Amino acid sequence: MKSLIKILNEIKKIESAASVLHWDQETYMPEGGGAYRAEVLAYLSLLQHQMATGQKLQDELLRHINYKTGEIINITLSEEEKRLVELVAKDLKKQMALPDDFVEEMSKHASATQQAWIQARKNNDFSAFAPYLEKMIKMKKQEAEYLGYKDKPYDALLDQFEPGMTTETVKELFAGLKERLLPLVKKISEAKQIDDSVLQQSFDTDEQWKFGMKIAEAIGLDMKHARQDVSAHPFTIGFHPEDVRITTRLNDKMLLSGLFSTIHESGHAIYEQGLNKDHYSDPLGQAASFGIHESQSRLWENPVGRSKEFWTYALPILKEHYPQLKDVSLDDWYRMANIVKPTMIRVESDEVYYSLHIMLRFDIESEIINGDIDVNDIPALWNKKMKEYFGITPKNDSEGVMQDVHWSFGGFGYFPSYAMGNLYGAQIMEQAEKDIPGLWDKIKKGEFLPLKQWLNEKVHKHGRYYDPEKLIEVISGEPLSADPFMNYLEKKYKEIYKLK
Amino acid sequence: MKSLIKILNEIKKIESAASVLHWDQETYMPEGGGAYRAEVLAYLSLLQHQMATGQKLQDELLRHINYKTGEIINITLSEEEKRLVELVAKDLKKQMALPDDFVEEMSKHASATQQAWIQARKNNDFSAFAPYLEKMIKMKKQEAEYLGYKDKPYDALLDQFEPGMTTETVKELFAGLKERLLPLVKKISEAKQIDDSVLQQSFDTDEQWKFGMKIAEAIGLDMKHARQDVSAHPFTIGFHPEDVRITTRLNDKMLLSGLFSTIHESGHAIYEQGLNKDHYSDPLGQAASFGIHESQSRLWENPVGRSKEFWTYALPILKEHYPQLKDVSLDDWYRMANIVKPTMIRVESDEVYYSLHIMLRFDIESEIINGDIDVNDIPALWNKKMKEYFGITPKNDSEGVMQDVHWSFGGFGYFPSYAMGNLYGAQIMEQAEKDIPGLWDKIKKGEFLPLKQWLNEKVHKHGRYYDPEKLIEVISGEPLSADPFMNYLEKKYKEIYKLK
Repeated sequence: MKSLIKILNEIKKIESAASVLHWDQETYMPEGGGAYRAEVLAYLSLLQHQMATGQKLQDELLRHINYKTGEIINITLSEEEKRLVELVAKDLKKQMALPDDFVEEMSKHASATQQAWIQARKNNDFSAFAPYLEKMIKMKKQEAEYLGYKDKPYDALLDQFEPGMTTETVKELFAGLKERLLPLVKKISEAKQIDDSVLQQSFDTDEQWKFGMKIAEAIGLDMKHARQDVSAHPFTIGFHPEDVRITTRLNDKMLLSGLFSTIHESGHAIYEQGLNKDHYSDPLGQAASFGIHESQSRLWENPVGRSKEFWTYALPILKEHYPQLKDVSLDDWYRMANIVKPTMIRVESDEVYYSLHIMLRFDIESEIINGDIDVNDIPALWNKKMKEYFGITPKNDSEGVMQDVHWSFGGFGYFPSYAMGNLYGAQIMEQAEKDIPGLWDKIKKGEFLPLKQWLNEKVHKHGRYYDPEKLIEVISGEPLSADPFMNYLEKKYKEIYKLK
Repeated sequence: MKSLIKILNEIKKIESAASVLHWDQETYMPEGGGAYRAEVLAYLSLLQHQMATGQKLQDELLRHINYKTGEIINITLSEEEKRLVELVAKDLKKQMALPDDFVEEMSKHASATQQAWIQARKNNDFSAFAPYLEKMIKMKKQEAEYLGYKDKPYDALLDQFEPGMTTETVKELFAGLKERLLPLVKKISEAKQIDDSVLQQSFDTDEQWKFGMKIAEAIGLDMKHARQDVSAHPFTIGFHPEDVRITTRLNDKMLLSGLFSTIHESGHAIYEQGLNKDHYSDPLGQAASFGIHESQSRLWENPVGRSKEFWTYALPILKEHYPQLKDVSLDDWYRMANIVKPTMIRVESDEVYYSLHIMLRFDIESEIINGDIDVNDIPALWNKKMKEYFGITPKNDSEGVMQDVHWSFGGFGYFPSYAMGNLYGAQIMEQAEKDIPGLWDKIKKGEFLPLKQWLNEKVHKHGRYYDPEKLIEVISGEPLSADPFMNYLEKKYKEIYKLK
């Protein structure tokens, strides 16, 4: 295995270098550095692709597995080693499934489509975006054919974000979710709304930064191996478990948004730091899926970060930073941190409505890929679904169908991961409550280490050893379901909104 | 030529990526990220070496030049193209002259020697450093043999920093310098000293940062293609002419040190930004030498940045940042910015004494490489020279022979570049004064653009087209000499110290 791992180490070094350049691009790079940076990144990506599909890797792999059929050749491999070579073989097969000229055309078309999207959104002109989107859809359907699938073409795309997940599984999960979620949002919308006027003040951003960093460290982000910077859109990027970067953006008018962004990204970063260092360059040291990654950020942000227990600990500290909040009670603060309101824009949504934003996108994009929707019908379909799920209608396509970047870079199959993150996260938290005695009492006292270590042990250290659905079953003993998430939401918001 | 340039472009992309990682390492990288970063950088360096000595490059080069003999094969090349392939051939020959196992051993021994140096300096124990230094010297002598030279082994090492420069040339230049410099420092040391008590206050570092950035932009640093950050040791690094980074360090007790550091690094960065973009990956778009680079930083720092004309413009701005300076006169400020005092430590030296620090190091290291000095005799030799040039004696080897990092990483031949920078810079400025009508009146008004553009045209755009000595002759019509520098120093300090 040593010589296989050596090649993976080299590939990872190229990826890690590219990640540093990406991070710099979003944080510190002067404006004029962009053109050449794009060239360097494209070259590193080409190098990565060449190495990851190269003869050297194929030869090494063939000593252990027939990567075309998946048949294990080296019978001396341990179970762990078998899974490792299977995953490397799967990745290789995927990289090789797409012809070079298709990859190049996709890369160019994705750039062009993103540019078109930026302009079209600015001008609120879907018709200018439509031809690009139409070609993108055609290419994604082609990509699904190249990648292969058992049941539906969309499955091939989903698999890139949630390995093993299918259109049918997501449909079933979302059906279970919708059944309980729609009645809940209806009740909340009819309940007495929460007064959050105290949040409509200016909150010094230096103090926001300091408070956010305190909380990040408190929940377990190891700052010897991480740092936070500022960027236009918050993100997390890991160069290695020993060097993980998060970013935030702060606005003096949006205290909670900046704080929860830091907690969210810290959750991602704690996962990155918790990955198995001994396998940092191979699949056993990689995140299980986009959705599992998202479960780790959302878990800290919502069930933990918006809990009354968390604020029992954190509110007194926040008040030291903002004496202007000295008279706010814990109960009022807790309610303000959990306001539920329909929003037109996904990224501004609360945890209750959020899944509906995703369902809407899943409904449409799975139908786009599996079916035969005319691109010009998509905006109307979007607006119809908005009405159905949210009871509101976008006043134009810029705040409707064109609000997200994902389709323009070809990210069909990406959206479900966000909602899966909520489901995975709730099911994981349910188990954590069972396994960690007095979990919430500990959180009240600011003791987050037991939860963090439990996550390290139960989630992080496995890497991609299990596919996400299997991982959840290994952790909780139950198949993935929407029930833990809905149990959590119903219990929490019943109290907050005093629902019957 | 296109296919040759394509390979150089690829090599440059790897170097540029490595530079971003180096920059991050010195500015933002969390402490714990160092171990893996070293691995990534070592791998990128290996990749670079493989590409820069690879068969592909050799084959392409052989279509134009026999790189072993230097004979041009492709007779259709323009003069510029000829020089380009000659320089690529020279670089290739150098990279291939050193056997792989020697390079690897050197890399390891340099790391070990640096570690030993850090410890030995801390413990003030030269004897602990001596065996490492002894082996390093032996290896550098071996390296000189591998690289080849006409006259003296030290010439081979010098050539890596100042192409074409020899022990003899440096000796002659330094002799001319010493002849006039020693009497000048003697006179200054006997003159009435300058009172700089007004500088012994605390100066807010945020204001230092703002003022420094204003000056950097004023002298011509294009901030759309540059940025400044903080690091332990100030440096400049260019990823491409369109993305150049400088760093500074600020101390509230050292107003001038921080400011002149920013001007110094801005001078380096203006050079990097002024390099020929069309040749960014080949020698015609690279800096001519370490010394020419240093001339660009020192020229802005000293002849310009410490001139009375510069402060005619800058002092009123500085006073806006520091009302505490409102009563300081231009004359007094100018004198304080030009205090001359012997220092034990090179990096704390003023522009007058600086060259003596370098001469001392040149005397010793050229003798080490060309002659046969016992490593244990070096500290005594150092102290003897300090006494001779500065009239002071280090109280221990940590502030004597062990103060600089250079020898520990094998940088023999590096030091002269610093002093050459002073000489090149003065000779360049003398020509600029002739070519730019009313240069100093412009500077009084904060008009730096004419000088910057003149440097772009006369120095920067040539890249490595000329070797440094030739470049100076092309610019000034005269061979390189210490006279312009000494004329500058004598005239300036005669007035400041009211010398006879």
